[in-house]
Amino acid sequence: MSLIEKHKSTLDKAIKALHDRTFYAHFPEHPAPAVYGETADADGQAKFKAWVGKKFEELKQTGASGWAGQEESPYLQETLKVSYPTYSLDTLIGNASNAFQSWRKVSAEQRAGILLESLDRIKSRFFEVAYATMHTTGQGYMMAFQASGPHAADRALEAIAAGFEELQRFPAQTVWDKPMGKFNIQLNKEWRAMPKGISVVIGCSTFPTWNSVTGIYGSLVTGNPVIVKPHPGAILPIAIFVSEIQKVLSENNLDPNTCQLAVDTFDKMITKELAEHPAVKLIDFTGNSLFGNYLEALPGKTVFTEKTGVNSVILDSVDDADKVAANLAFSLSLYSGQMCTAPQNFYIPESGIKTAAGALSFDDFAQKLIANINGLVDNPKAGPFVLGAVQNKKTVERVGEAEKLPGKVHLKSRTFENPMFKNARVATPVVVEVNADKKEVYAKELFGPIALLIKTKNTDQSISLAKEMALGHGAISCGAYTTDAGVREKIADEMSMAATPVSFNLTGGIYMNQNAAFSDFHVTGGNPSGNASFTNPEYVTRRFTWVGHREPVK
Amino acid sequence: MSLIEKHKSTLDKAIKALHDRTFYAHFPEHPAPAVYGETADADGQAKFKAWVGKKFEELKQTGASGWAGQEESPYLQETLKVSYPTYSLDTLIGNASNAFQSWRKVSAEQRAGILLESLDRIKSRFFEVAYATMHTTGQGYMMAFQASGPHAADRALEAIAAGFEELQRFPAQTVWDKPMGKFNIQLNKEWRAMPKGISVVIGCSTFPTWNSVTGIYGSLVTGNPVIVKPHPGAILPIAIFVSEIQKVLSENNLDPNTCQLAVDTFDKMITKELAEHPAVKLIDFTGNSLFGNYLEALPGKTVFTEKTGVNSVILDSVDDADKVAANLAFSLSLYSGQMCTAPQNFYIPESGIKTAAGALSFDDFAQKLIANINGLVDNPKAGPFVLGAVQNKKTVERVGEAEKLPGKVHLKSRTFENPMFKNARVATPVVVEVNADKKEVYAKELFGPIALLIKTKNTDQSISLAKEMALGHGAISCGAYTTDAGVREKIADEMSMAATPVSFNLTGGIYMNQNAAFSDFHVTGGNPSGNASFTNPEYVTRRFTWVGHREPVK
Repeated sequence: MSLIEKHKSTLDKAIKALHDRTFYAHFPEHPAPAVYGETADADGQAKFKAWVGKKFEELKQTGASGWAGQEESPYLQETLKVSYPTYSLDTLIGNASNAFQSWRKVSAEQRAGILLESLDRIKSRFFEVAYATMHTTGQGYMMAFQASGPHAADRALEAIAAGFEELQRFPAQTVWDKPMGKFNIQLNKEWRAMPKGISVVIGCSTFPTWNSVTGIYGSLVTGNPVIVKPHPGAILPIAIFVSEIQKVLSENNLDPNTCQLAVDTFDKMITKELAEHPAVKLIDFTGNSLFGNYLEALPGKTVFTEKTGVNSVILDSVDDADKVAANLAFSLSLYSGQMCTAPQNFYIPESGIKTAAGALSFDDFAQKLIANINGLVDNPKAGPFVLGAVQNKKTVERVGEAEKLPGKVHLKSRTFENPMFKNARVATPVVVEVNADKKEVYAKELFGPIALLIKTKNTDQSISLAKEMALGHGAISCGAYTTDAGVREKIADEMSMAATPVSFNLTGGIYMNQNAAFSDFHVTGGNPSGNASFTNPEYVTRRFTWVGHREPVK
Repeated sequence: MSLIEKHKSTLDKAIKALHDRTFYAHFPEHPAPAVYGETADADGQAKFKAWVGKKFEELKQTGASGWAGQEESPYLQETLKVSYPTYSLDTLIGNASNAFQSWRKVSAEQRAGILLESLDRIKSRFFEVAYATMHTTGQGYMMAFQASGPHAADRALEAIAAGFEELQRFPAQTVWDKPMGKFNIQLNKEWRAMPKGISVVIGCSTFPTWNSVTGIYGSLVTGNPVIVKPHPGAILPIAIFVSEIQKVLSENNLDPNTCQLAVDTFDKMITKELAEHPAVKLIDFTGNSLFGNYLEALPGKTVFTEKTGVNSVILDSVDDADKVAANLAFSLSLYSGQMCTAPQNFYIPESGIKTAAGALSFDDFAQKLIANINGLVDNPKAGPFVLGAVQNKKTVERVGEAEKLPGKVHLKSRTFENPMFKNARVATPVVVEVNADKKEVYAKELFGPIALLIKTKNTDQSISLAKEMALGHGAISCGAYTTDAGVREKIADEMSMAATPVSFNLTGGIYMNQNAAFSDFHVTGGNPSGNASFTNPEYVTRRFTWVGHREPVK
């Protein structure tokens, strides 16, 4: 049985799910022993520990010139001492150029089969990937498992499905038969989906697989060779993905250099050299706006970015203020605010939030939010696991600086001792009140567990500011609480105009940070946060070009 | 009956044709009295003549501040003295911003109905548009009718169909129902196709409607207001389109400012001001690479361009050299080489072109080509109509300079007296032999009736050069003649890698310059000629953003 035959029903279901957009998941998100095996967790942890201090010798790509690796665990604050092969720019580009010539001629079906098989293989390594993710990003265990494992694999499957579908959009050939009166002009026409060229996927330090696999699989399924340039601080999780892709390629007599890993170090980053190389036609990037804007301005490249954003929460009226405060406290604490979808700016009218029992004042809501944050942080069975650790020392510094912002500090950031990792780098949320006229304070991303409570004249101003922030500085998510249908539609419409998806009235176990494959578009392309929308049609169609040839029928 | 009901079957057929890509046309291309009416031609000519020296007072847009117009007929070499209302930048942007708020809320069905109705109205003005096109672009009568009338309208219909289809791609709403074990999380989700904002469509002097209507209708159907900035030398044809769109908008109680005409003059162009305005989000451009590259580099804009290119003809082996020479002589003479799809570089091996009767030498083929050009030019019943007139004086100068290129001049450019227009600006094709090593001569677009016969070592070098020109300098079309299946596939594959469509072995009444709606993609996005592919999916999907909102099911 060919690989595409083996995985055809998975592909068909994924294509259907892309269109339906209701709940769909191929990879089970819960690390349940009943699903993944009784020893899967322990085995994965052991495999991760075995990598520490070792060379990552799993890759099948060719031409290594050295070894390097500078990852550090935010839980241990120690370097992992995993080293990876390094390659010269010429080797990476040369390998990719060679692999391109064979990969582009592999049929869409065979490409999809190989890529789906690689995801199947990676599934057996989800726990290993999870521990690698914890100890590079600082994510809590559950997030590290879900985001880097099943959720990333579902996003990858989504990109394969979207790309495969688009490759079938136009006929491979047809007869064009034009009546001219006394005779017909008949042309045989054919259309070829031509991949654009070498694709470079630049990873980030916080979501090393989730934010990269869509670009990797989206480029591969459409026939492009890929060079994966991970963040030097978070390599191991995506290295495991790349090595499984390479193994399946090799087993099928294809060039493992079709998907290469390009590791660099903090002191000698190779990203610009790669991005600017004329043979590189496609760039996927997750990271800061400065670098993202530079990439977007490179001539002759197709660039997909996820950059910084300022995510807002608009508080107008609520059914149950306690549930709202609990939901938002969790949202801003989750992975210590290091999610691109985490809320930052909370807009609260000076007259308070409307409730059935009358207005809840600005200060009373602030107190409820803080009480919920403290309740979460101080709960040893929840806090350490929800907050995880802080990936980057600079984030801790930024949290410290937030306390000096011009406004009342409602809650200072603290640390606590993680019961499992005494040296974990921890910073609990800081909550600062800012007046609406202090735009210079809140009109930028303050990455990390930093919440700004912004006192507005009224909800109209809240909406206006949230929209202005999104249009001017980007936004990837928005939360809104209102019991008024008119206000709801106004928020929906205005934030739509700023290309920002809104989660309305979330309470309980669903959060504005969460973003589901096959349903939620991620980064919609209409504001400065970027255009890497997982997976809308242009995210895959722009990776290849339709070219048509024609010739008279004989 | 609503407009969409009236035009639904037209829309459905167009959407089907988009996918089938076999021959389809909604608007009859022949100016036959039986189709368009016995007096249609004379009436259209009379209407055009009535515009000369007059104010164009048909527009319904508001806020004019003056009148201007500098069009000149290449057939008469006299100014037309048609004047058009002019508007300040603030008025244009203000009008468009206001119109945006209503137009974006009009349903996709209603938008499509209005736009299809406008095409129906324009159909009754095809002859008027044809004469306006002749006397601004210099096109011959038949091309002016077809390209600016039915072919443009079919391309517009194609863009409406493609946009309408994409707006339906995802559900307006669904319930996302996620099993969590003991309970389900249920979210109501909705998706809105949000238009990006003001769209500016920048026209060219040679195809004032054909190259602009796809952007105009593509932006309008997806909900964006449009400002049409015609070339100051070719306004009237597109002004008629815009005025018909405005009339249908007004009749349906919609803001005619949804589609505005923005006329400027050679001495005070407003293109840069318009393009750089922050409210302008979409730009369509046809013209030179220098300005196109500037537009593409503007941050925060979605830009579709058709820029310059170097179109090649690869001559390897032929069945009938006379038929090939006749076909190519017509291709390079048609509208005096002022088509973006016209051939320029003819690659011929030094050993000649293979035929069943042995090799046809380079010089013998050159003689055949020249004989055919002369036969066409010197035929008073064909030459004046096929060549038309030269739009721009600079093109005549360029043709003159071509005779000084370093190489043998096989045919000098001449003029002849057009029997209908004694003052017509005419330049017949110049044919110059250039050696393959003189890349500096032929590695650029020489717009106009300029043919370069390039002597190559062999067909492999011909292919290599044609690909190199396309990758380095763009290409929109390519002709190739070969009777060898292996060579054919090599050309098809190599030129595909340069995103250039190839017309193989054309003889008789079909030419590499021609490009059919609903079948041939025009400018494929994979080489420096630009990305404005009529109409591939991204040409319309990038004009709007999918935004999803969600809320718990109550």
